[in-house]
Amino acid sequence: MGLSDLIAGGMDATAATELLLNVVWTIVGATLVYFMQAGFAMCEAGFTRAKNTGNILMKNMMDFVLGSLFFFIFGFAIMHGTDWNGIIGIKGFFNPTTLADADGLFNGLPIGVFLIFHTVFCATSATIVSGSMAERTKFLAYLLYSAAISIFIYPVTGHWIWGGGWLAQMGFHDFAGSTAVHMVGGICALVGAKILGPRIGKYDKEGNARAIPGHNLSIAALGVFILWFCWFGFNCGSTTAASTNLGDIAMTTNLAAAAATLATLVVTWIRYGKPDVSMTFNGSLAGLVAITAGCDTVSNYSAIIIGLIAGILVVFSVEFFDKVAKIDDPVGAISVHGVCGFTGSILVGVFSPEYTLKTQMIGVLSTVAYVLVMAIIVFTIIDKTVGLRVTKGEELDGLDIHEHGCSAYADFNFRL
Amino acid sequence: MGLSDLIAGGMDATAATELLLNVVWTIVGATLVYFMQAGFAMCEAGFTRAKNTGNILMKNMMDFVLGSLFFFIFGFAIMHGTDWNGIIGIKGFFNPTTLADADGLFNGLPIGVFLIFHTVFCATSATIVSGSMAERTKFLAYLLYSAAISIFIYPVTGHWIWGGGWLAQMGFHDFAGSTAVHMVGGICALVGAKILGPRIGKYDKEGNARAIPGHNLSIAALGVFILWFCWFGFNCGSTTAASTNLGDIAMTTNLAAAAATLATLVVTWIRYGKPDVSMTFNGSLAGLVAITAGCDTVSNYSAIIIGLIAGILVVFSVEFFDKVAKIDDPVGAISVHGVCGFTGSILVGVFSPEYTLKTQMIGVLSTVAYVLVMAIIVFTIIDKTVGLRVTKGEELDGLDIHEHGCSAYADFNFRL
Amino acid sequence: MGLSDLIAGGMDATAATELLLNVVWTIVGATLVYFMQAGFAMCEAGFTRAKNTGNILMKNMMDFVLGSLFFFIFGFAIMHGTDWNGIIGIKGFFNPTTLADADGLFNGLPIGVFLIFHTVFCATSATIVSGSMAERTKFLAYLLYSAAISIFIYPVTGHWIWGGGWLAQMGFHDFAGSTAVHMVGGICALVGAKILGPRIGKYDKEGNARAIPGHNLSIAALGVFILWFCWFGFNCGSTTAASTNLGDIAMTTNLAAAAATLATLVVTWIRYGKPDVSMTFNGSLAGLVAITAGCDTVSNYSAIIIGLIAGILVVFSVEFFDKVAKIDDPVGAISVHGVCGFTGSILVGVFSPEYTLKTQMIGVLSTVAYVLVMAIIVFTIIDKTVGLRVTKGEELDGLDIHEHGCSAYADFNFRL
Repeated sequence: MGLSDLIAGGMDATAATELLLNVVWTIVGATLVYFMQAGFAMCEAGFTRAKNTGNILMKNMMDFVLGSLFFFIFGFAIMHGTDWNGIIGIKGFFNPTTLADADGLFNGLPIGVFLIFHTVFCATSATIVSGSMAERTKFLAYLLYSAAISIFIYPVTGHWIWGGGWLAQMGFHDFAGSTAVHMVGGICALVGAKILGPRIGKYDKEGNARAIPGHNLSIAALGVFILWFCWFGFNCGSTTAASTNLGDIAMTTNLAAAAATLATLVVTWIRYGKPDVSMTFNGSLAGLVAITAGCDTVSNYSAIIIGLIAGILVVFSVEFFDKVAKIDDPVGAISVHGVCGFTGSILVGVFSPEYTLKTQMIGVLSTVAYVLVMAIIVFTIIDKTVGLRVTKGEELDGLDIHEHGCSAYADFNFRL
Repeated sequence: MGLSDLIAGGMDATAATELLLNVVWTIVGATLVYFMQAGFAMCEAGFTRAKNTGNILMKNMMDFVLGSLFFFIFGFAIMHGTDWNGIIGIKGFFNPTTLADADGLFNGLPIGVFLIFHTVFCATSATIVSGSMAERTKFLAYLLYSAAISIFIYPVTGHWIWGGGWLAQMGFHDFAGSTAVHMVGGICALVGAKILGPRIGKYDKEGNARAIPGHNLSIAALGVFILWFCWFGFNCGSTTAASTNLGDIAMTTNLAAAAATLATLVVTWIRYGKPDVSMTFNGSLAGLVAITAGCDTVSNYSAIIIGLIAGILVVFSVEFFDKVAKIDDPVGAISVHGVCGFTGSILVGVFSPEYTLKTQMIGVLSTVAYVLVMAIIVFTIIDKTVGLRVTKGEELDGLDIHEHGCSAYADFNFRL
Repeated sequence: MGLSDLIAGGMDATAATELLLNVVWTIVGATLVYFMQAGFAMCEAGFTRAKNTGNILMKNMMDFVLGSLFFFIFGFAIMHGTDWNGIIGIKGFFNPTTLADADGLFNGLPIGVFLIFHTVFCATSATIVSGSMAERTKFLAYLLYSAAISIFIYPVTGHWIWGGGWLAQMGFHDFAGSTAVHMVGGICALVGAKILGPRIGKYDKEGNARAIPGHNLSIAALGVFILWFCWFGFNCGSTTAASTNLGDIAMTTNLAAAAATLATLVVTWIRYGKPDVSMTFNGSLAGLVAITAGCDTVSNYSAIIIGLIAGILVVFSVEFFDKVAKIDDPVGAISVHGVCGFTGSILVGVFSPEYTLKTQMIGVLSTVAYVLVMAIIVFTIIDKTVGLRVTKGEELDGLDIHEHGCSAYADFNFRL
């Protein structure tokens, strides 16, 4: 129904106008957030080797596919269904549209609009993991994980934070999902990569980390540009409303990303002697992840500081996981999404007068705890049943040929 | 004119607000539909060989270019101009803006808004054909075909379905163009590929089909992600109005695409022993094409079923054209757009209580008949005059070097 | 604040509705204009050699990053701050949000919305230069230039044209920035490329120009499709208002681009015997740049003529700089943005009855003069201090390995 239909149906003109403004804006936001799938796919494909490209593209596609289906059938009810003690939603399974009120609305939006927006958010969280587990994870195992995160990992903490659960009631602020989306994905990425173990050749006999360069910086960079582009939908869209502060959110988002990119550039230039391309592009994502929690509430200069912190932190975090923890994360997903999601959420308590550091700490740590436990359970079960990892031979030859019977670049010769 | 100008000019406040909401939404939709050109270009380039990449990119660019110009000059008048007996539009040639009423409106929108939206739709239909005719069609021949589809193939059935013609009057429902856009393109693709004949090397001496793998799955996958992204503009934008059901349309669109992708994955896994990358990405498109006709009227579960049908069907359809009909369609355009466009349109009559199977059959079959006849005439004339196909030597060396004097990957060696 | 909040706060319902419509539309526009960064990055990377890909990607990222930061801190105040004698803005340094009125508005929009829109415009102007200076410019030198254009080159002429300065007062019309954005970037591109000198191998001993083909036409074409897509945000978004003429602007934009592409195709076909891929895609950009100044005021047929002129002109301009002026511009940025930006701005005086050729000439020539002088000063200072150009050895080996210690295509062998 358009505006005149709504008014003819008895709705107040202002309410009807506001509703449609919000619908248009939220659908624009959802569409942009969907497109993050392309960004992640290009980024992860570009930052890994040519022999595994078809596989990583498929994983990026399939986590969205399974996420869309399972979040519709199960996840949405857990995340947004009628609240049970602040812990979990318990209504709306199998057909979440039944949660709508008599006017077809849910949380003030037509339920289809609310549904599609939250579907693409769930899938964003799911897709983060494919990067850290790239180049050695069985395809079937990855599908099972994708189902699990969409059904009961993401939706539970999502309920706590955004579904009226206990963290929401306590005043935890995570505007667009530094914690709910990115850190959840980042923690799963950490557990997955840890249980999998490093790629063959990642560490030499003495245990020193070796760089395994990505095969295509053009598409990796394209992925980052796409993600930045879509982040305007992710952060500004999280108002789910046409609002005068959309520009302020766009500004904090953009300034944090810019500051983070610059910080990473400078840090790598100092530490490695040359400005590092892959790391700098990851720096952009670090800033975007970190500002996501507080993009609606911090000032422009606070956004710049948050960006600078994230951009510096991501370099040391990548080094830490690479060299100290010896967890092989081919694209840096743990650092970008996990560490910077964590940090950005905490920093809301520092830079926004409206929110307290204590509540932010509680929110982030309880989410870490839940996701850590669930991810360990899920990945361990998968590992003990179908197995998480491909065979040594498959890994050396590449997953494309063994898992899918294809080469991503059939006309070209490339190193395995 | 903005809102206050419209009201100052005497327009009712509600009408003016609704008009501007619709303008903003429709321009967003048109912009996204334009970007499908990038999706098709990447998809078709990626699924074909490196030696023909420059050529396929040029064809994707030029069909949009010629479509934009010729649809403006001729096509729009035929499609949306004053109706003559339900068969054809007969007013608005050379300057379709003259069709606007005294307020500059046409079908309730400022005519420029309506024009750009339908221009990008026409070009979408045109661009489908380049895929099935890839790697062996003369560039000039392709330009002539592009003009023909934009001038009198697409606009005529477009008039029947969307321009107030006889199918519209009969109640045929094709919300966003499973028939009007995709099947029309798919039928032209079929005729073109059939008349051209298969690529050299596609069939061995015994007539067995051989796979000719694409050269770049990264960009092919990117193309599919872009198309899925733009499909939110294609389907939701087809309301050409800010409406409360935009989310419902986005949900059916997304669920059908997800279900189709999953179905194709499973079918290829069972039939070929491994989940097939190229086919699975085509499965996404199959679901998107199939849901397009009924995305506004079917339920979420019906959308899932439509997606599953399309995702299964596309595999067998591709095999049929490849192995039985021996029509060489390098990217699967006939199956994705033709067969799934056909099927999705029919399924509206099955899954929507508002529309009858009989009317849907009449709509689809009459469109098939018209487009088939016209495409045969057009491609035969082109074949007999300038010639459809490049020489054997040109085909073996690649179209890039002979048709354009270039290599798409000048710094790399690749197999011809 | 949403609609009901604004009205509850005492705002008139019509004004509040109009404000939010304008906010939504302008943020959509800004988001699309941001994404031009991806278009430029892919275009420039694709049209240059594989050994310099990481470097060009980094430059495209960093000019946006520095542009975002410096335009916020300095540039915006110069461009839009309180006017001083029509020459320069002098208020709003360090925190441009202080320029907002009591309602948080600036030029009728919430200041954050206005800020993000103009930030992405500034960055578009900055990024044009990386193309003409590709494959031989020191990374640090490029960073310094990026700061300079964002701080005091772009903002000054931007103030004249869009910030209430003397050209605005005189009635110079540059709707979306053929002059203010593209020509400014193009003039800087010209000066930079001239001072740098040609790439090694570009001219043989007799001084004849040799073609140095780009390494990846797929991503170059993708870049052009992305830019065309984003141009709907660039031109239609420049209303910064939901307005009934958005469709008209989209139509002139699209028709000019289509006509230009066709013109370039035909001209190259005639001159070189084959339709040239790279040049034709540049023809699209030529048309887009040329229509940008007058897209809101010329008719559809005038747009076609402007496109045809630009599409023809770009071929001869590229040849002129290549063969006569012997200025090596790897991607044709001087011709596309400089020459076509110049021409498109002048043509507003020819095709629009509302604007005079004389004023358009004054606007364009004064902008040329200012930018030329400033660019010469900036590039000369950089050249004499840190140096503009890498060493001969670095250039021959490629900038990726020397400047960044990476290869953009690590799994592949490619020619240096």
